[in-house]
Amino acid sequence: MNPEQENPDIRTDGAEAETASDVERLSADIGRIHTLCEILAPAFPQIEAGIPPEDETLTAPLTELTVLLAELHPADAAGVLESLPPRERNIVWLLVRPEDDGEVLLEVSDAVRETLIESMDKEELLAAVDDLDADELAELADDLPHQVVAEALQTRDEEERAQVQAAMSYSDGQVGAIMDFELVSIRADVACEVVLRYLRRFDSLPDHTDKIFVVDENDALKGVLPIRKLLVADPEEQVENVMVQDVVRFRPEDDVEEAAQAFERYDLITAPVVDENKKLIGRITIDEMVDVIREESEADMLNMAGLQEEEDLFAPVWDSVKNRWMWLAINLCTAFVASRVIGAFEGSIEKIVALAALMPIVAGIGGNSGNQTITMIVRAMATGQLSGMQAKRLLKKEVGVALANGLIWGTVMGIVSWLLYNDLGIGLVMVAAMTLNLLLAATVGVLIPVFMEKAGRDPALGSSVLITAVTDSGGFLIFLGLATVFLL
Amino acid sequence: MNPEQENPDIRTDGAEAETASDVERLSADIGRIHTLCEILAPAFPQIEAGIPPEDETLTAPLTELTVLLAELHPADAAGVLESLPPRERNIVWLLVRPEDDGEVLLEVSDAVRETLIESMDKEELLAAVDDLDADELAELADDLPHQVVAEALQTRDEEERAQVQAAMSYSDGQVGAIMDFELVSIRADVACEVVLRYLRRFDSLPDHTDKIFVVDENDALKGVLPIRKLLVADPEEQVENVMVQDVVRFRPEDDVEEAAQAFERYDLITAPVVDENKKLIGRITIDEMVDVIREESEADMLNMAGLQEEEDLFAPVWDSVKNRWMWLAINLCTAFVASRVIGAFEGSIEKIVALAALMPIVAGIGGNSGNQTITMIVRAMATGQLSGMQAKRLLKKEVGVALANGLIWGTVMGIVSWLLYNDLGIGLVMVAAMTLNLLLAATVGVLIPVFMEKAGRDPALGSSVLITAVTDSGGFLIFLGLATVFLL
Repeated sequence: MNPEQENPDIRTDGAEAETASDVERLSADIGRIHTLCEILAPAFPQIEAGIPPEDETLTAPLTELTVLLAELHPADAAGVLESLPPRERNIVWLLVRPEDDGEVLLEVSDAVRETLIESMDKEELLAAVDDLDADELAELADDLPHQVVAEALQTRDEEERAQVQAAMSYSDGQVGAIMDFELVSIRADVACEVVLRYLRRFDSLPDHTDKIFVVDENDALKGVLPIRKLLVADPEEQVENVMVQDVVRFRPEDDVEEAAQAFERYDLITAPVVDENKKLIGRITIDEMVDVIREESEADMLNMAGLQEEEDLFAPVWDSVKNRWMWLAINLCTAFVASRVIGAFEGSIEKIVALAALMPIVAGIGGNSGNQTITMIVRAMATGQLSGMQAKRLLKKEVGVALANGLIWGTVMGIVSWLLYNDLGIGLVMVAAMTLNLLLAATVGVLIPVFMEKAGRDPALGSSVLITAVTDSGGFLIFLGLATVFLL
Repeated sequence: MNPEQENPDIRTDGAEAETASDVERLSADIGRIHTLCEILAPAFPQIEAGIPPEDETLTAPLTELTVLLAELHPADAAGVLESLPPRERNIVWLLVRPEDDGEVLLEVSDAVRETLIESMDKEELLAAVDDLDADELAELADDLPHQVVAEALQTRDEEERAQVQAAMSYSDGQVGAIMDFELVSIRADVACEVVLRYLRRFDSLPDHTDKIFVVDENDALKGVLPIRKLLVADPEEQVENVMVQDVVRFRPEDDVEEAAQAFERYDLITAPVVDENKKLIGRITIDEMVDVIREESEADMLNMAGLQEEEDLFAPVWDSVKNRWMWLAINLCTAFVASRVIGAFEGSIEKIVALAALMPIVAGIGGNSGNQTITMIVRAMATGQLSGMQAKRLLKKEVGVALANGLIWGTVMGIVSWLLYNDLGIGLVMVAAMTLNLLLAATVGVLIPVFMEKAGRDPALGSSVLITAVTDSGGFLIFLGLATVFLL
């Protein structure tokens, strides 16, 4: 397939520095930018005012920083901006090449995008969005001042205005909101040679063009012509004999996470978006899908940790407090309930104070085990592997696992408590309470996500808080209840 | 750009069923397969023996199931297999078209792959891997019996054997382990027209071919020729005038997660892998990178929940116990330490039993808040946004957030405890203990990941367990300590 690769000769004079991997080079660049920001700190007022630094020894670092930033890919510039505290971020943002502004705004996180947009005036914003495609403008539109969006739309032609408005009409989680409109379409009844000639008339093809969309006279999608096939096809062959008809297609109302899963399963690069009449209206591309996959997993992680949304590392204290208060409040409520459960057994604790020291162990292992169960099930549901039908079977299995773990770890802690307090009764209550709380954790760990899904809710959201609430209060109740019945 | 799209006529006679999105159709198919498995349960012994079902009413469902499975993409067949309990999984695996076996094995999760390979004999395995590329065979090799790998290698030519062995020589997290060898390379001193003629000689181009690699006579990489550029280029133009020289390239020793981040940032589809002499040795493709991104985020999530690795949903109870025991054991140890802290204050609890009920609130809010801090920082580190230099600044901010939250929520719970126990002292101790524990959580939440990274360890691994251990024991110590000093 690739005869030139068989040549065993190796050129050995390659300069080492040049072959250092790109990954390493970038991280060195970012480190250097941080250092330059520190060196330049005294000259910040001058840089902000757009005049040369008073201290002439700072001219060289300033030039170096400007050159470094100009060489950065917009995505890397976005990463640098996210990594800097507010003052430094503003300075670097001033030094980024204005023609990169739009791309950088698209790449930074929502929280940082807000701070950058706030620092720009209307003219700068209009210049920044001027080069963007319709779908990119639509993506930024929510964060831009209304006035800017309105003026930016006026400079576009009728078709683009319609595209921006179409993209903005879909909600964040829908395919329509991330589709783009740059695509190449052809008719089925032309020869491949004609297609090649047609393509040569473009100045450049849209990013990620791996296939050409084949439509009929009404723009209805008939199939796709993969470039891979076009390149090896006989130039005389008609497109309809080369094209693929069985195509993964999406509707603008489709869920982006499901679309991303389809991209992953079928190894897609681009896919057509069609309306209810099969009319081709746009396409979605793998780069957007990769972002969806990344954001989805990050959102899960943030939610599990009790953060509402991605936070600017250097956000003002008060913004961070607002981003985090809700889960803290929920946590306080569930902790309060658990506290009242303990309160109900204060009489027992007064008599056997050892109970106070042992009860967090019972609650803790239940929470840990319940989180294991619920994470596994939520994950299986997210990848579509689990239907309600199997819930019974899974419950049986998880109860089995809980029973095994309860007897093993319950016995370990039972023996430890027996030796520690020299009281066999306390040991036996530990074994029983730990086993029962693990069984409770397994049952609730299966049932919470199953019911959440039946109710049409996202089973990931808050499931960890819920299970911990149940295993805490439940664990205290079981342990203190058993102790009250059998030890007093 | 696409004049045919402007035609406003819409064909309205499209059959609705046909335009149902692919996403919906797949989930219906999977549901149907589950139902058919239930219907066919009585005939499982006959299906396993390869004879027609005794009960003739089951012939039709069996045919339907076979047809449905034959129509599934191997990735979907893999999803179906993962979603089925062991017995049903075996039946479906028997019915999957043998020519899909290799692809399906590549797609299923590690845990399920093991169960499938166990059910196959040597001939079936050899037939399954026969169609695979060198890099795919290398990917499966670890899970296959040695004998099968050895025999499979004998049927390959010298070059492929060398490729399989090269791929197997890299560890799981390295680019070399996932690179593939199917690539098209050309010389720089030919015309674009020659390239197009050369490509036409292929039966088919490798998957994801979005660029052709330009090499010199020693196979050293000189640049890449994106297909997008080739298609619009003047056929007479020399490749060296069209090719791109500034190319993101990787070394086989590079970390796959860093490579995946580069793919994400630069919107790559394929990228060259070169050795220390710049010699082109393979390429990596976006589909592998998407898997890396997905697996990375899943591993983080599983680790946070205390699971060692992805688990087969229907694994035997004992396998699940083994997958989960380690984190449960660690959790028990930290809970035991916390329990001993409480034990040290048994005298105080005996005198004021309310302390036992209130102490979990102090520990709980510390754990919640600490997890918020640590998650944010670990995430920033994973995306390379955080260098050690900013740790001090971040610490200052997090301490500020903790102080605000501590005063707000501490006061709320302080008032509640005061009213509940009618004791102002208890209320004041609550305020102080909650604020102090939140400050402890913030400090440790910043320091743990910073030290982990300095020590060269993955800051994500176990960080949640560590912070909870600190805030539990610390919370009990602070609260009970303050109570002992001020209330007794």
